[in-house]
Amino acid sequence: MESKEWSSGVWTHLTAVRRQSPLVQCITNFVSMDLVANTLLSAGASPAMVHSVAEVADFTPHIHALFVNVGTLTPDWLPSMKAAAELAAQLGKPWVLDPAAVSCSGFRLKACLELVELKPSVIKGNGSEIIALSGSASQGQTKGADSSHESTEAIEAAKSLALSSGAVVAVSGAVDIVTDGKRVIGVHNGTKMMQRITATGCSLAGLVAAFLAVDPLQPLEATVSAMSVFGIAGELGEELANGPASLKMHLIDSLYGLDETTVLSRVRITRLG
Amino acid sequence: MESKEWSSGVWTHLTAVRRQSPLVQCITNFVSMDLVANTLLSAGASPAMVHSVAEVADFTPHIHALFVNVGTLTPDWLPSMKAAAELAAQLGKPWVLDPAAVSCSGFRLKACLELVELKPSVIKGNGSEIIALSGSASQGQTKGADSSHESTEAIEAAKSLALSSGAVVAVSGAVDIVTDGKRVIGVHNGTKMMQRITATGCSLAGLVAAFLAVDPLQPLEATVSAMSVFGIAGELGEELANGPASLKMHLIDSLYGLDETTVLSRVRITRLG
Amino acid sequence: MESKEWSSGVWTHLTAVRRQSPLVQCITNFVSMDLVANTLLSAGASPAMVHSVAEVADFTPHIHALFVNVGTLTPDWLPSMKAAAELAAQLGKPWVLDPAAVSCSGFRLKACLELVELKPSVIKGNGSEIIALSGSASQGQTKGADSSHESTEAIEAAKSLALSSGAVVAVSGAVDIVTDGKRVIGVHNGTKMMQRITATGCSLAGLVAAFLAVDPLQPLEATVSAMSVFGIAGELGEELANGPASLKMHLIDSLYGLDETTVLSRVRITRLG
Repeated sequence: MESKEWSSGVWTHLTAVRRQSPLVQCITNFVSMDLVANTLLSAGASPAMVHSVAEVADFTPHIHALFVNVGTLTPDWLPSMKAAAELAAQLGKPWVLDPAAVSCSGFRLKACLELVELKPSVIKGNGSEIIALSGSASQGQTKGADSSHESTEAIEAAKSLALSSGAVVAVSGAVDIVTDGKRVIGVHNGTKMMQRITATGCSLAGLVAAFLAVDPLQPLEATVSAMSVFGIAGELGEELANGPASLKMHLIDSLYGLDETTVLSRVRITRLG
Repeated sequence: MESKEWSSGVWTHLTAVRRQSPLVQCITNFVSMDLVANTLLSAGASPAMVHSVAEVADFTPHIHALFVNVGTLTPDWLPSMKAAAELAAQLGKPWVLDPAAVSCSGFRLKACLELVELKPSVIKGNGSEIIALSGSASQGQTKGADSSHESTEAIEAAKSLALSSGAVVAVSGAVDIVTDGKRVIGVHNGTKMMQRITATGCSLAGLVAAFLAVDPLQPLEATVSAMSVFGIAGELGEELANGPASLKMHLIDSLYGLDETTVLSRVRITRLG
Repeated sequence: MESKEWSSGVWTHLTAVRRQSPLVQCITNFVSMDLVANTLLSAGASPAMVHSVAEVADFTPHIHALFVNVGTLTPDWLPSMKAAAELAAQLGKPWVLDPAAVSCSGFRLKACLELVELKPSVIKGNGSEIIALSGSASQGQTKGADSSHESTEAIEAAKSLALSSGAVVAVSGAVDIVTDGKRVIGVHNGTKMMQRITATGCSLAGLVAAFLAVDPLQPLEATVSAMSVFGIAGELGEELANGPASLKMHLIDSLYGLDETTVLSRVRITRLG
């Protein structure tokens, strides 16, 4: 299946998000909360930044998908992430794990490995994160939240992680990679300057959760669609931007305004393996 | 009193905020801190995001108004909200409660009901939140932070809550409703797209606190003025916007630049009951 | 040394940040995280918002500089600030302390004084904060996070604090002051409207950390350069802005796009003492 065949799927997914406005619980880092929420709102979804362990039992049964990102993890946040993930998995609701900066500490790596055990539908990271989480790299080789690996270097690690975890694994980068362990899909949308805006990676992962909510049985296809949509919004944004801050604004505006013609003509998705 | 009579009051209030630059303590959710602070700064107020219970005794006596929003509530945040609210009420300083997503859990509903006991000057929510808090609806009918009720559906609940709590109750929506239990005022400013920006509701509630600070004895009038000003800034912003992110920018810029002619010609306030 | 002599240093520092992309650990307040991260990214640095005490031992050894800001301090955040500062100092890595709103409570003042003991390379505050921290003013005279003193009123306090702490002390204001206790430098770049955007002061302090990372042996020069660069970006931003929110966007875009000609022609630095 090449871009043409994928394009209509991308548009169908976006339309479903806009129509259904899925409720997406986000337990994400402090830096990203604003952009994750605005990304979801501009895509038509309904974000809920509900992260207290005291609220999981009451709230999580009502959601359509869950997004967990460990970007500013402290030990007191882990119980709610686990409780929400466990309940989501148990209730058959899709959930996305973003192992942000997983290798910055032994504490964070251990936390992420425990979250992987709770059956995420999708794991979304950059090349360095997926390599670290997959066990293909030893701890401490990468710095902070920025990747020191191209996404394409992480294909084998991603496939291995997908097979061992049962999750679809998505690697953001110059080319976004999505794999279920067998199929490997490349999403060629997006623009390099998006890496100079904090929380774009988190926001993409949150958007994946919204797309999963409307097509939970096809997590690979939903993930590919979300990554393509976000990349297209970035491309349109960059045409209007003078730097990272105006790119951020135009990206969100573009995501809000995306129409069928633009999506169909812009989708660039290929089978890589 | 119709729009013409209200207009000069709105402008008087805004001018007073700009001149007095009231110090507004904000104990608000993580998602909204940036936009709440920027809204207050652009209106001429001085926001202080001081939320530690260790600082209430020293700091709260110096403020001119308090804003409490439960949007990302966890049990460890509740003591400082209560301590600050109690001290503010005791010192005769106005305070605003925003019961964001009150019905998302039993924990949150209980917390909000406890905060209502501490005599807020104004309670500001969307239709679903006010209905839930007023006891007119049973828990769990609404999803997340977005309202599933029109503000006008919440008029009776708002009046009832106002009478039982002694607070002015404000309901944001297509028409903003403000009531003290007897009078019911409708503010017809604003634009629908503001709902696609996270934290606009929180920011409006923070702005109400700033307006209360300069007219504490007339909480209904101050609240109506703040809602009209914020709505007008949104209307002006939308004329320049291409989507939610540029609307957010233009809204803040417009709030900063509002002049008397614009305010007087744009205010749309009516008595509804 | 006047502006001409300083100009080439400013450009050299900025170029080094862009080339080396130093990893800057930021333990900063919730309000500022987004803008601090985007400021560092647009300057070419790599921010990491890693604040858990559980991660300091693993992560802090890999950083190039540390930034600590107490803007939304609670007691549970202090141990990680201290642990990271202590480790940074011990490993010879530069670190910046921003004593935001230091005088808002006895708790915060005590925390800042304890942090000063841990040998920050640079202390960056507004006039009121530096005066309070220096002991030149008694507690409680200033309100919230906004300064009630001109930076030039704080020169003696800054010199005194520099001599007692061993840190370079920077005072942001209409004229930014930087002193090591002997030399006093004035940075005349920037624009007044930046005070109407929350977290610009924090972001400037974070940027100082990035500049220190590439010139750790000359903290006064690195600080002066960072303050000039940020001020120039603000000046360029204001030329395009219609208010605080568009200024924020254009400031970040301008920082990202700064070229040598612009920097060399815009730097305004003078020796004040």
